[in-house]
Amino acid sequence: MTKLYHYPLDPFCRRIRISVAEFGGELELIEERPWDGRIEFLKMNPTGLVPVMIADDDTVIAGIEAVEGYLEDTRDENTPSQLGVTPAERAETRRLVAWFDGKFHHDVSAPLLIEKIVRRFVPPEAGGGAPNMNKVRAALDKIRPQLEYIGTLTQERNWIAGNEITIADFAAASHLSVLDYLGDVPWSANKQAKAWYQRIKSRPSFRSLLADKIQGMPPPRIYADLDF
Amino acid sequence: MTKLYHYPLDPFCRRIRISVAEFGGELELIEERPWDGRIEFLKMNPTGLVPVMIADDDTVIAGIEAVEGYLEDTRDENTPSQLGVTPAERAETRRLVAWFDGKFHHDVSAPLLIEKIVRRFVPPEAGGGAPNMNKVRAALDKIRPQLEYIGTLTQERNWIAGNEITIADFAAASHLSVLDYLGDVPWSANKQAKAWYQRIKSRPSFRSLLADKIQGMPPPRIYADLDF
Repeated sequence: MTKLYHYPLDPFCRRIRISVAEFGGELELIEERPWDGRIEFLKMNPTGLVPVMIADDDTVIAGIEAVEGYLEDTRDENTPSQLGVTPAERAETRRLVAWFDGKFHHDVSAPLLIEKIVRRFVPPEAGGGAPNMNKVRAALDKIRPQLEYIGTLTQERNWIAGNEITIADFAAASHLSVLDYLGDVPWSANKQAKAWYQRIKSRPSFRSLLADKIQGMPPPRIYADLDF
Repeated sequence: MTKLYHYPLDPFCRRIRISVAEFGGELELIEERPWDGRIEFLKMNPTGLVPVMIADDDTVIAGIEAVEGYLEDTRDENTPSQLGVTPAERAETRRLVAWFDGKFHHDVSAPLLIEKIVRRFVPPEAGGGAPNMNKVRAALDKIRPQLEYIGTLTQERNWIAGNEITIADFAAASHLSVLDYLGDVPWSANKQAKAWYQRIKSRPSFRSLLADKIQGMPPPRIYADLDF
């Protein structure tokens, strides 16, 4: 079976897990804590980042861009692309994936993950310790404008990038699901964004994410609740 | 004609300029200084980043990921992909593009561009002023290991990602060409990397880059010299 080196709360790994499930595939998940800097893992991906996928023929596919492209390149010819159909639709999907994996990640999910998760697991000499609350607050302040953007997009369209679901939805939902695990999403701030997340959270492809548990750090009750 | 909003020393715009030329296309270049935060530009790309491409039918294609994908999606069916042929080759190309656009950019080209270019053009209240020499030195120190990596890759293979030229070469060369404009590449440190750059620099698709001039900041003589 195809293997995925992943960290449960990494938004990029979550996107791949959704994407594979939506394509009807299965993954054997292997937990990797990228901050450990394991030599054997660095040999597979010199950036040290998850996800890394190992195909059935042992091909190593390293990094979110490569894994996403590989899933598209090897999909069954009768299975629709998860990027959209026309070049213009696909450009809009890619623009929005870059928005969530760039801007949203940089401003919100990366600082929250570093402060609330990574610093809990690394030794003090590597930057471990209590979260820097100034950084946490700065990141939290940027969630509402992101919910508003999602609200605006999904009011004009059925899904984030257009009328069909795409990896732009998987990307946005992956980042938000990580914050949701941390109990940090003010869902009541935007009804439209909440309705969109409810739709995507109810999909079978999302189930394995809702079952994730980080040891010593259980999610709030609403995390796995479809009526949150 | 297809338009490209670009900044001459932006490595992502340079990659697109090479890519379009290698596909046999032409671009009308429109200079955009992304740090100006021009409202009309932000409407085209809310991230505020270049490149933004305007297709002949006025479709706006915003950001490097969308533009690259659009060029692939709309290429003539007889024109080979610039990503490689097999899914494994294409995964390797994408891994290395992510390396240069992620790691190399973060560690080297982004800090050097900010310190040496952006700070020269923005007002003091927006962070303008003399370069922070500690940041400049930290970035310069990371160029040699990158040249070594390119040397190792191109010793094993003909080009960076395999035996054919791909966008991984265009990405690596784009970042290096920006540093070369700033006079910052210690070419003598790695013969193999230099030989690879010489090959790519000699291609017709590279010519327009070598003619770039930033006002008040001419490149060193060797920048446009094919025997550097």
